[in-house]
Amino acid sequence: MNRTVDLNCDMGESFGAYTFGADEQLMQHITSANIACGAHAGDPNVMEDTVKLAKQNGVAIGAHPGYPDLAGFGRRKIELTDVEIYSHVLYQIGALHAFCKAQDVPMHHVKAHGELYNVAAKKKHVAHAIAKAVADFDQNLILYGLAGSYLVEEGKRLGLRVASEVFADRTYQEDGSLTPRNTPGALIESVDQAVKQVKGMITEGHVTSVKGKSLPIQADTICVHGDGTSAVPFVRELTTALQAEGILIESM
Amino acid sequence: MNRTVDLNCDMGESFGAYTFGADEQLMQHITSANIACGAHAGDPNVMEDTVKLAKQNGVAIGAHPGYPDLAGFGRRKIELTDVEIYSHVLYQIGALHAFCKAQDVPMHHVKAHGELYNVAAKKKHVAHAIAKAVADFDQNLILYGLAGSYLVEEGKRLGLRVASEVFADRTYQEDGSLTPRNTPGALIESVDQAVKQVKGMITEGHVTSVKGKSLPIQADTICVHGDGTSAVPFVRELTTALQAEGILIESM
Amino acid sequence: MNRTVDLNCDMGESFGAYTFGADEQLMQHITSANIACGAHAGDPNVMEDTVKLAKQNGVAIGAHPGYPDLAGFGRRKIELTDVEIYSHVLYQIGALHAFCKAQDVPMHHVKAHGELYNVAAKKKHVAHAIAKAVADFDQNLILYGLAGSYLVEEGKRLGLRVASEVFADRTYQEDGSLTPRNTPGALIESVDQAVKQVKGMITEGHVTSVKGKSLPIQADTICVHGDGTSAVPFVRELTTALQAEGILIESM
Amino acid sequence: MNRTVDLNCDMGESFGAYTFGADEQLMQHITSANIACGAHAGDPNVMEDTVKLAKQNGVAIGAHPGYPDLAGFGRRKIELTDVEIYSHVLYQIGALHAFCKAQDVPMHHVKAHGELYNVAAKKKHVAHAIAKAVADFDQNLILYGLAGSYLVEEGKRLGLRVASEVFADRTYQEDGSLTPRNTPGALIESVDQAVKQVKGMITEGHVTSVKGKSLPIQADTICVHGDGTSAVPFVRELTTALQAEGILIESM
Repeated sequence: MNRTVDLNCDMGESFGAYTFGADEQLMQHITSANIACGAHAGDPNVMEDTVKLAKQNGVAIGAHPGYPDLAGFGRRKIELTDVEIYSHVLYQIGALHAFCKAQDVPMHHVKAHGELYNVAAKKKHVAHAIAKAVADFDQNLILYGLAGSYLVEEGKRLGLRVASEVFADRTYQEDGSLTPRNTPGALIESVDQAVKQVKGMITEGHVTSVKGKSLPIQADTICVHGDGTSAVPFVRELTTALQAEGILIESM
Repeated sequence: MNRTVDLNCDMGESFGAYTFGADEQLMQHITSANIACGAHAGDPNVMEDTVKLAKQNGVAIGAHPGYPDLAGFGRRKIELTDVEIYSHVLYQIGALHAFCKAQDVPMHHVKAHGELYNVAAKKKHVAHAIAKAVADFDQNLILYGLAGSYLVEEGKRLGLRVASEVFADRTYQEDGSLTPRNTPGALIESVDQAVKQVKGMITEGHVTSVKGKSLPIQADTICVHGDGTSAVPFVRELTTALQAEGILIESM
Repeated sequence: MNRTVDLNCDMGESFGAYTFGADEQLMQHITSANIACGAHAGDPNVMEDTVKLAKQNGVAIGAHPGYPDLAGFGRRKIELTDVEIYSHVLYQIGALHAFCKAQDVPMHHVKAHGELYNVAAKKKHVAHAIAKAVADFDQNLILYGLAGSYLVEEGKRLGLRVASEVFADRTYQEDGSLTPRNTPGALIESVDQAVKQVKGMITEGHVTSVKGKSLPIQADTICVHGDGTSAVPFVRELTTALQAEGILIESM
Repeated sequence: MNRTVDLNCDMGESFGAYTFGADEQLMQHITSANIACGAHAGDPNVMEDTVKLAKQNGVAIGAHPGYPDLAGFGRRKIELTDVEIYSHVLYQIGALHAFCKAQDVPMHHVKAHGELYNVAAKKKHVAHAIAKAVADFDQNLILYGLAGSYLVEEGKRLGLRVASEVFADRTYQEDGSLTPRNTPGALIESVDQAVKQVKGMITEGHVTSVKGKSLPIQADTICVHGDGTSAVPFVRELTTALQAEGILIESM
């Protein structure tokens, strides 16, 4: 029975004069940071500062590549070819890696951002393009992907270690996919319910769907949101509750 | 007496639907390619293709970081702080390195582009920011800089190997600097005169200024221009003439 | 019977150091110029120069708004909301209008670019967003759209004058849509065949589909391509042939 | 004796997912809004919303063109030629004007942003390029510029109405220029002192320099800052204090 889980959060999403998220506070509570790489968010200065911050807090550093679309924050689909997805992901991984190398801290994982993450979950060819970019860059990187998704599958197929990601504050549908955000009941707002869902996923390997069905699920890492006023208290409460249940929070 | 020289050229400066330069033809004649990194020019697809092209032709690959200014092609000054210059150069080196790593070909050097190159020649603090980004990324990279410039000096001071760059088709002023482009007599259009100037620089370590003064100069690498209709024939003639003089053209 | 037609061409698609198309030559042969507005291509300098060039040649000036995606040249879909499409189109129309106003030449029409044009042909809500931006800006602008498309329909519904666009060098399918570019037989490469198709569309109001069916079509304006080595000779031959048939080429 | 003054504030500087400033609250207290035009900040959606907000609050709308540099928020110098400054300012004015036109509200003024404003104060040729873009677009627009600057002078010379801008929270040097931000004593943090300075400028046409010299100054409009936690209370207190002095706050 699994009694360990990773807490990951998107970080370094500020840009120029624009600030985003509560990185300094959240970095104290998470175990993996997905750092934006200057495409959907972030800039070279922010990347450098965020790598430093993660290093200081002993948080595992991951590249967080997204669609090259600052105006859309990587949340809207752009029709890139697989070749373009491969080259954009590779570019962004390399860019972040430079800051890790300069600060002598390892790069630990890669997690795709926003709509690229969503598309990679459902489209095998996109999942392949991303996994191949990761594998071509460094076979030792861990690929994060939605539990049960094509991204996780393609990562495995290319010989990468993978991390199946689950959500504390989102409900699941009968087919194991997340209830879309705009559907009623998509979000879990009670911390108690979030803890209960996460605990079941980690220790029993199951999640209960919105219609009450018990679904098998692999839970290696929990996605925690970095923006919104409740982000910091939510993570703090989640951490306390999981630890009270005897679950160890650490990166893979 | 030196009888070897490197021929370097800016490459990979196309962007999306826009093409620039005659990369495929020039790559057959040069020994070092400075590949744009997506800031002043280039994009992830172009970078991948250009790294492949250089590899196929046995040309040494260098990162070619510039001001983040596609609209200005990196040719106009942007007031970046030294911290920003450091982080932008590091970012761009890392991005290009990813394509080298994925294609299992080493990254050989770094040469700053356009106005960043010019500023780094004259401003010690800018030269330092660039040299530090290179050294922090990989102590084995060769730093290209204008012969006699602060960039070469700072590279040496940080323990990097440096390449002093000279120009075949530009004249030199009394203080060893290039005659500004918009000044009459700045450009050397005769291939014979270009060869004569280059030969003197390589084999004798001297260049004759516009006013006839003999100046000491270190010539490790010659900059060859990649755009314009005469780019390809110029390189071809220069190569033939240098070889006829018994000068070996190879990367450092 | 109609004996007049407009020849329109995309113009002003250069950007910074990047040149695109043969604007100076083509401007002598067309009657309407669709000028890029700095989103998918073009920049303020290019826009100013292109408005001047059109004015000098007596060519009607249109705004040519596209997806805000220089890297994709507006040829790939970005999932914008209708509100975003409205505001982006309005922004771009206004930007081009400023150059017309400063040079005291009227803005004549609006034609959407690339994938935005394609999407607006098929999606009524996108067509509406574009038509509304045009109508809200100036009720006297002519809206160009694919013959038979939602864009033409929505333009009419909002009280705009519309121009039904046809293609000289593309074949039509049974349902009146263009044969997709990647399908064999999509392109008409013979000028004779192109002239024959255009003549039939203008004077008889019919086009023959790839399977031989005669389809009714409204032909107010012919789209002529501005890039490619054959662009200029094609337009020249087309013009000569149409004039020989007694068809007058002029803007609406 | 003048007893009227305008309060202007930069607005609409959010971008995509990034928010900036307290537009909704500040719009209730100011009389002129300088709305970013998508170059240094702002995007088409933000522009539309901000024009609506200004209209609802009866606030005069101005275009707020800046260097095309989102990463630098228009606060750092980019070496644009005068031709480029002219075309960029014209472009941005036109883009904002489209939203005014669509919402049937007049565009009232133009105020340059950040470093473009600073450069235009000191460089006559830059001031001329900006003033000419404004005049070429619409001779009825009011040009805002630093009191005593080249921008105000060039505006007048081209026949434009001008607004001399003063600062409530910045001190002045002996030559009438603002004390640079990074100099001790540059900022006025006491509201009382700010009110005293502004009152003297409006009603007596004088300001006292940091060294105690009384300098003549024309005060048509006061610049109020839109970001920072104290922005809203500062404006509220300033307004109350000026009204208590019998000074009418209204746009020109």
